[in-house]
Amino acid sequence: MIDDLHPSGPDDPGDFLLLSLGCTFGVVASQPSPAVMQVAPAPRPGLSIHTERWDTGGYHHGYVDHYGNRCERLMLAAGATEINYDAEVAVWAPADVIKPDTPETPVGSLPDNVLSFLMPSRFCLPDELGHEAWQRFGSLPPGWGRVQAIVDFVHGHLEFMPGASNPWTTAADAFRAGQGVCRDFAHLAITFCRALNIPARYAFGYIPDIDIKPDEPMDFAAWFEAYLDGEWYTFDPRNNESRIGRVVVGRGRDAIDVALITSFGPLTLTNFEVRADQIFV
Amino acid sequence: MIDDLHPSGPDDPGDFLLLSLGCTFGVVASQPSPAVMQVAPAPRPGLSIHTERWDTGGYHHGYVDHYGNRCERLMLAAGATEINYDAEVAVWAPADVIKPDTPETPVGSLPDNVLSFLMPSRFCLPDELGHEAWQRFGSLPPGWGRVQAIVDFVHGHLEFMPGASNPWTTAADAFRAGQGVCRDFAHLAITFCRALNIPARYAFGYIPDIDIKPDEPMDFAAWFEAYLDGEWYTFDPRNNESRIGRVVVGRGRDAIDVALITSFGPLTLTNFEVRADQIFV
Amino acid sequence: MIDDLHPSGPDDPGDFLLLSLGCTFGVVASQPSPAVMQVAPAPRPGLSIHTERWDTGGYHHGYVDHYGNRCERLMLAAGATEINYDAEVAVWAPADVIKPDTPETPVGSLPDNVLSFLMPSRFCLPDELGHEAWQRFGSLPPGWGRVQAIVDFVHGHLEFMPGASNPWTTAADAFRAGQGVCRDFAHLAITFCRALNIPARYAFGYIPDIDIKPDEPMDFAAWFEAYLDGEWYTFDPRNNESRIGRVVVGRGRDAIDVALITSFGPLTLTNFEVRADQIFV
Amino acid sequence: MIDDLHPSGPDDPGDFLLLSLGCTFGVVASQPSPAVMQVAPAPRPGLSIHTERWDTGGYHHGYVDHYGNRCERLMLAAGATEINYDAEVAVWAPADVIKPDTPETPVGSLPDNVLSFLMPSRFCLPDELGHEAWQRFGSLPPGWGRVQAIVDFVHGHLEFMPGASNPWTTAADAFRAGQGVCRDFAHLAITFCRALNIPARYAFGYIPDIDIKPDEPMDFAAWFEAYLDGEWYTFDPRNNESRIGRVVVGRGRDAIDVALITSFGPLTLTNFEVRADQIFV
Repeated sequence: MIDDLHPSGPDDPGDFLLLSLGCTFGVVASQPSPAVMQVAPAPRPGLSIHTERWDTGGYHHGYVDHYGNRCERLMLAAGATEINYDAEVAVWAPADVIKPDTPETPVGSLPDNVLSFLMPSRFCLPDELGHEAWQRFGSLPPGWGRVQAIVDFVHGHLEFMPGASNPWTTAADAFRAGQGVCRDFAHLAITFCRALNIPARYAFGYIPDIDIKPDEPMDFAAWFEAYLDGEWYTFDPRNNESRIGRVVVGRGRDAIDVALITSFGPLTLTNFEVRADQIFV
Repeated sequence: MIDDLHPSGPDDPGDFLLLSLGCTFGVVASQPSPAVMQVAPAPRPGLSIHTERWDTGGYHHGYVDHYGNRCERLMLAAGATEINYDAEVAVWAPADVIKPDTPETPVGSLPDNVLSFLMPSRFCLPDELGHEAWQRFGSLPPGWGRVQAIVDFVHGHLEFMPGASNPWTTAADAFRAGQGVCRDFAHLAITFCRALNIPARYAFGYIPDIDIKPDEPMDFAAWFEAYLDGEWYTFDPRNNESRIGRVVVGRGRDAIDVALITSFGPLTLTNFEVRADQIFV
Repeated sequence: MIDDLHPSGPDDPGDFLLLSLGCTFGVVASQPSPAVMQVAPAPRPGLSIHTERWDTGGYHHGYVDHYGNRCERLMLAAGATEINYDAEVAVWAPADVIKPDTPETPVGSLPDNVLSFLMPSRFCLPDELGHEAWQRFGSLPPGWGRVQAIVDFVHGHLEFMPGASNPWTTAADAFRAGQGVCRDFAHLAITFCRALNIPARYAFGYIPDIDIKPDEPMDFAAWFEAYLDGEWYTFDPRNNESRIGRVVVGRGRDAIDVALITSFGPLTLTNFEVRADQIFV
Repeated sequence: MIDDLHPSGPDDPGDFLLLSLGCTFGVVASQPSPAVMQVAPAPRPGLSIHTERWDTGGYHHGYVDHYGNRCERLMLAAGATEINYDAEVAVWAPADVIKPDTPETPVGSLPDNVLSFLMPSRFCLPDELGHEAWQRFGSLPPGWGRVQAIVDFVHGHLEFMPGASNPWTTAADAFRAGQGVCRDFAHLAITFCRALNIPARYAFGYIPDIDIKPDEPMDFAAWFEAYLDGEWYTFDPRNNESRIGRVVVGRGRDAIDVALITSFGPLTLTNFEVRADQIFV
């Protein structure tokens, strides 16, 4: 499992954000299809789950994968199924941490179980984009600022364009196309970090619509975490600004490890809605 | 994590039991006290969790221990706290499996990760009671029948007596006293199994009150699982009869690994209620 | 960790093969470079390691990754380093198992921890080659024969051509090129299996030169394992014939997870030799 | 697995100790008996294993338990077997670390996976000796000094007496008897630490005979580690002085988790020798 290096509870228990979050999606399957969903927040320090409600239209069972993510297995019946997940949670210390003076951890001093986040993965290709990474960022001083420079570059280089990418678009594809959605932003920044020997992992979850732009529908969000000076820190190349109240559903090497829904059979997504609203009590 | 060896979904999805389960307990702490609770069912094949609701009076966060059990950490404030947990779940194939012809797995053929369930633990003492075990059960033919003979003996030897044991009563203590509660029944049977080189693990959870005797208040129940012919099977020395609808909260080497609540500070339990009712829809 | 589903010791302890195996490689680093090696057999049932000898020219330490593979971390000094690893091992029941009547396990019945071997990975692209896979193999009866048909196709479609592929050649690249080395053969067959919902994992290790062709230098070999009817079975699309005495060094989703050597710094490989010889006593 | 919190390689690669270590033991089994041995150092940062040689008289295979310890399974034939293990290793930064100003980590801030080292186990009984622990050490200032006070007390209270304890002697037994061997010293100190909410784990391994007293035969040694301020530190209540060159074979909750040899069948130990000598090159 992925171990958080901030294992403690909140220092100031009063500083929390209460959220109602969830999602609804409708699917049509031409035949009974096994599937796996990842929509529920992973258990972790700093997150209190108060209530949860699942409606998957039939049998489902949960398991926890080796990254510590909660996965829900189900068998989709032939025909239409509507799936609902709703939760009320409290997030402690909800703002992204910013520590510009944080140094990098030398590779030789990384914990053994962090090394795999330096390696290429399905969508993150430090092997292919290594030359590009070193040319652009290799001469910058190591540390937080170099990761931020990567984030700034990706934020500027990629145009946010719903529909610009498909399920097998890699970081290299997105880099060349200059377009993408939030997962492509994350994949490209992860790729550059890994090429520079900075461990980086993909994160996926809810961001409450506290400051959402009115013309964008709510959606799941993807960002990434970089390992600096012994800890994992959040960076968000899509938004490139600190956000309040991220709720991590899954973490992994890239989007392969944390798919909203994986179906082992043909499936059509007919509707899709994500919710993450602040509750005022 | 403990791997179930029956990973599949239900064969007949119609055969399930719908349950409302949960617990309430009141505690009084003389000072702020960190604590860990285990009251929520572990994710596993054959169990659908539909809704859950936690009320712990403050911050709490979940994690999954290396046995696959869900644990909830919280900080109890000084004074009185009432904790509530409620869930609606469906249990597939809810009856205990009975397979009298099942042989034992020779120790040399046990999977590596099962071996630890042969070893002594805090409350289960095959080292101390080994001679007793071999005298009583050593000459019986290996297999299901020998485990059942152990269960029959423990069921007869121990008198069920609420209050007969305290938090550090071992299987050897209970054996000598001839009295105990369900956890002592489980510990003693586990002890005998391990002494005979049959892997056995402690299980703890909800049993719905479908056939409960009217003079017994509902409580959490403890039973055990024995590893025979490559699979874990349920045995219940307290009841010594097949039950419908067990919901496992935790598994481990003994009650140490799956405590309802563990407090790191002085705590008084002021009230306690467990619920597990069938829902008719 | 990856769990073998054949955990037992040998049925007939006399049926084993005694091997001397190891490797030597020389590298030149322009600067001190952290690195990870995977050359030592993973601990597993059926393998006795009698002796091991490492010479890495300095500090190195081992760890076991979450697939159960042994990894050795070291810091390569600037300049030339020669690395040696030697072992004597005994392999029990050394021949590949062939069971043509073995059915597939339906996805809905796969153990939770096997699911990830259905997913795309860095080099295995069932998403991209899914249409190809279903066209070629979708109408075949499920089971061992379908996996063997995939192996036959890959064995015939790809020409073995040292140097034909580079470190970032994917299964799709190899498929289009019609050429590759043993890791490309494995990646392509894994890709087709996963596209058909058959779990498949990459394996890498030593094959003793009992029947090696005289014109081929000894090398590490790559093959794969398919999960059928509850167990993992060995298939070898490069050789497409049963071999005696495979010794698994690593398993994973693809070659990313089990690299001979991964260097975090520029490295030149100056010489390389693999040994796997039968010992006659 | 147990994660070391000092994952890095050596800061000064020159500061190491070269050791030849190993053990020989002869056993007589009245029937073929499965067994598990733990005699080989666990892979960890700061330890380079250069060579290893096993002679177990037959088939054996290794696995890594969930604490990260290496275990070797074998089947002892009926009659006499001699088992040998030999290794050459280098230990970096070989002296015990002493940091008297280190504070305790509050329970609420402990990592989730450290909590289990606060719980009672087979031989460590903070539940039974809790009152004793608080009376003696409860008023001392928290931190390193309190752990050292526990170590001082145990070192003085217990008389080292080979043969004073048997395989099921608990910390409470040893406390009352006032005698024990090194494992009893460790169990009692662990018990007191856990009672005070300081995580403590049992460690077992080789200590080279650099300063051994001439009248004591070399043996495996047991000590313990306490978790203070985010790291595990070594304490040795048997010797109560800093030692050079400890090599950890196993760690766990107590001696149950790290037994030299566990046999599932009657076994007589006929001879036993442990070696740990410095190599001068």
